[in-house]
Amino acid sequence: MSADARFQQIAQERGHDFSGEIKIGGNYTPVVRDGHQLRVSGQIPRVGDKVLFVGAVGDAFDVAQGRQAAAICAMRALAFLQRAAGSLDAIAAILRITVYVRSAPTFTQQSEVADGASDVLCHVLGGRGVHARTSVGVLQLPKGAAVELDLVATTATERT
Amino acid sequence: MSADARFQQIAQERGHDFSGEIKIGGNYTPVVRDGHQLRVSGQIPRVGDKVLFVGAVGDAFDVAQGRQAAAICAMRALAFLQRAAGSLDAIAAILRITVYVRSAPTFTQQSEVADGASDVLCHVLGGRGVHARTSVGVLQLPKGAAVELDLVATTATERT
Amino acid sequence: MSADARFQQIAQERGHDFSGEIKIGGNYTPVVRDGHQLRVSGQIPRVGDKVLFVGAVGDAFDVAQGRQAAAICAMRALAFLQRAAGSLDAIAAILRITVYVRSAPTFTQQSEVADGASDVLCHVLGGRGVHARTSVGVLQLPKGAAVELDLVATTATERT
Repeated sequence: MSADARFQQIAQERGHDFSGEIKIGGNYTPVVRDGHQLRVSGQIPRVGDKVLFVGAVGDAFDVAQGRQAAAICAMRALAFLQRAAGSLDAIAAILRITVYVRSAPTFTQQSEVADGASDVLCHVLGGRGVHARTSVGVLQLPKGAAVELDLVATTATERT
Repeated sequence: MSADARFQQIAQERGHDFSGEIKIGGNYTPVVRDGHQLRVSGQIPRVGDKVLFVGAVGDAFDVAQGRQAAAICAMRALAFLQRAAGSLDAIAAILRITVYVRSAPTFTQQSEVADGASDVLCHVLGGRGVHARTSVGVLQLPKGAAVELDLVATTATERT
Repeated sequence: MSADARFQQIAQERGHDFSGEIKIGGNYTPVVRDGHQLRVSGQIPRVGDKVLFVGAVGDAFDVAQGRQAAAICAMRALAFLQRAAGSLDAIAAILRITVYVRSAPTFTQQSEVADGASDVLCHVLGGRGVHARTSVGVLQLPKGAAVELDLVATTATERT
């Protein structure tokens, strides 16, 4: 099964559709390429017009819900990589993800939340999805989102 | 008009002068080059010795003021890129900016604040200034600054 | 004296041993290589199984203790670079470090805390350890750690 098919399958299983236009705002762009490196802008758990998880993890949401939010951020990032590279099979590696978890003051399981994103990346991309990772707990995020994720990836060739 | 002239113009219009020595502290450096990539250290809205915006956005400052603070951070980053590359016309792309907004607990317009930086980069560099972006809301920043910004850019050649 | 010897010496002086297995968790990896670039995952001040600094700087810990915590994060990152590159003498440059300081609400000396990491990198690597840096103050960190640090470095050759 291709990485694109695995992505389609996992998105469907979770009831999300990333095939339409993905809304972005501001004077910037979702993906920038430099040679074979692709940088993806910070993604929140938005599907279509709706941010699905608004609130702090450890307060409005528990770890399992935080993981779901992180998984949606990762799926959005994959959707952008797919468009930028033509296919997820053209993605050679995920170099790093940074996962910002909007946290209640005493919540310290940011790594467990970030696992929700790491698991999606490895499920879809296999060994090519194994990445370096940083997860931190922040006070707030755009739109009050529970999680934000950005990443840098590579393609096998410089231009695909 | 060259990118350097546009930078000079926008800095003058806003009453800031980045032509003198730019103060930095600590055992690190404002710009590191790796091939054609230039990484700029985190910039706060400091002009000369003075941090112009000290306080949280959504509390001490409103969105418009936060945007001004973000714009100054971007101008400082441009000043360092100009010195490192010889001229802003030698900058080929801004790959990513990360904008940390010191936020009041309920403030969720970090993206709107970051627009202040994105607008400066695109005004000065045109299409070469369009970047991937991550904006998050943090509890505190060095010197109590309202905004901090870092970025990675590229030059057309490996050494200029 | 080699960089490896300096690293061994500074770790011993401070009473830390990074020679055993370094514990990591989750579906990710401590170091990812892309050509000559090495990205190291976010490190907290953990030695063996124990996180040595749990609490906020400016509250549970003062600046000097925060610097110690940052130094341990940097030593952990060096231990991973050493394993990935074979020797710290194979490290050509530290491009950027990002230092996340778990901060009390009014604590604004994140840069002074980050100096603890910068000093270790420059002590061990000399001029090759001088880096771009971003330091921010966050609400929480994994395991309640006082500091988290990630970095991107380079080796002289693409594969060592």
